[in-house]
Parts: sequence; C-alpha cells; structure tokens
Amino acid sequence: MSPFLSHMDLALAEARAAAARGEVPVGAVLIAPDGSIAARAGNRSRELSDPTAHAEILVIREACARLKTERLPGFDLWVSLEPCPMCAAALSNARIRRLYYGAGDPKSGGIAQGPRIFSHAQCHHRPEVYDGQQAGAAARLLSEFFARRRD
Amino acid sequence: MSPFLSHMDLALAEARAAAARGEVPVGAVLIAPDGSIAARAGNRSRELSDPTAHAEILVIREACARLKTERLPGFDLWVSLEPCPMCAAALSNARIRRLYYGAGDPKSGGIAQGPRIFSHAQCHHRPEVYDGQQAGAAARLLSEFFARRRD
Repeated sequence: MSPFLSHMDLALAEARAAAARGEVPVGAVLIAPDGSIAARAGNRSRELSDPTAHAEILVIREACARLKTERLPGFDLWVSLEPCPMCAAALSNARIRRLYYGAGDPKSGGIAQGPRIFSHAQCHHRPEVYDGQQAGAAARLLSEFFARRRD
Repeated sequence: MSPFLSHMDLALAEARAAAARGEVPVGAVLIAPDGSIAARAGNRSRELSDPTAHAEILVIREACARLKTERLPGFDLWVSLEPCPMCAAALSNARIRRLYYGAGDPKSGGIAQGPRIFSHAQCHHRPEVYDGQQAGAAARLLSEFFARRRD
C-alpha cells in the first residue's frame, strides 16, 4: 500500500467524519484538471436541513461557486458510494469528466442499477465511470453505521 | 377561465421571470399542507453559478431550511415543465406528496421518459403525478426562449 493518501482515502475520511456527525457516511472529493483538490465534503443533509446536501452535490456547488461557473469539464469526482439518481444527474449536469466510486448501492444507487442515469438519450453528458474503488472499506463504513442505528 | 390565479399560473409567472433573467424558463411553486404557498422560484443556475439551482430544487431547499427539516410530506409541487432526473429524485428524497407539471420534456425529462425516476425499486417514495397542466403555455414559453437563443 502506498504511504500517501489516495483520493479515495480522502473520500473515506470525509465519510467517517459524516458518520461522526450522525449523517449517512458518504464522502466525496473533487479533483481539478491540474490534480489539485477543488473541494471535499461528506453528507450534511441533516445538519443543513437540506435533502439535496449529499457529498457529491456539496463539492459541485462549492467548486462552481468559487469558479463562477455551472460546468466543471476536466474535473474528476471520487465518492465512497455509488451516487443516488439525484447526484448522478447532477454530475452529468455539471459535466464532470470521470467518476470514481467505492461500493455499489443496490438499495439506492442510480448508475449501475435502477434508473441507470447515464444510459438514456435524456442524459446529455456521460462521465467515464470507474467503480469498485476500495469498495470493501466503503461498504464496511455503511453497514457499521446502519447496524449502530438499528441498536 | 377563473378570475383567480391558479398554482400553475404562478409557476408560469416564475418561468417568465426566469426567462427575463436569461435562465431556462422553468418555474415552480410549493404548496404547504394547509394550502398556503411555501415557496416559489424560477431557475437561477446561471445567476448562482450552481448547476443544481433548478426551480424545483430551490423551492425544496427554501421550505426545508425554513421548517428545519429534510422532508416535506403533505407538500405538493407545481412546475411548468417535466422535472429532469436530478429534480425528480430530489422530489422523492424530500417526500413530496403530489407533483403537478405542465409540458412533458422529451429532451431532458426524467419522469415519463428516459430514466423514469419513480419507476424503480431504488426509488423509496413516489409522489402522485399529474401531468399536462396548462401544458401548451409552458411549451410555448420554452420554444420561444430557445428560438430567441438561436437568433
């Protein structure tokens, strides 16, 4: 294993921080075309009373606001869990270049299952998708979180 | 025709105001369970540099922030155009009760076509859907807007 933190390590750290705040543990990191970290976030929908405040949406909003743009061509997004349909469609709207995600999400995922957001003529931009990035770590985080909530 | 403004008339007025700001002309009105207007908005994605700032998302965020909640059960949303997949999934996440929309959107719609957001096991709440509300007026607004943009 590399001694350096990968982009997915950072996304997982954001997911753990979200869990510590009582949010669903999902974290995302947005990488600019020059390789720098444009934004990082975990879910904050409870804290912000905002059902759209998923990690992916938060990093897109932050980068777009800073760059005063609606589109982020050349930007890559790393996220610990397969995005839901809302986030998948937002990634498309924002023209994200590549999407790397950890665990698949049979319950709520919108890319490899269910509505398969990128697989329709109504989708006008399809990021390249790389799934299964450190999938075990992301899946463990989620299952531990939901097991604790059931206690 | 009634001498009073309907919810869809208000949504169309928001769509016209959006067009006047150079935004895609879509407007939305959110009605609280007691029948009062909880929020109204038109698209502001250009103005806010936010690809998620569609009319539907703006009214949901405004009402949730004011009520300090992530969910709006019993709320109904009126919108001039068929929601895109991002907005359709956000309506589901927010537990909106009924969705009334104007024109269908073969190009970018996410409800009656393409990913059909409410038609999968990964969708955990399905609003009741009433389409075709003053559809002609909403469709005219859009076609006039895009005709002007092509000039």
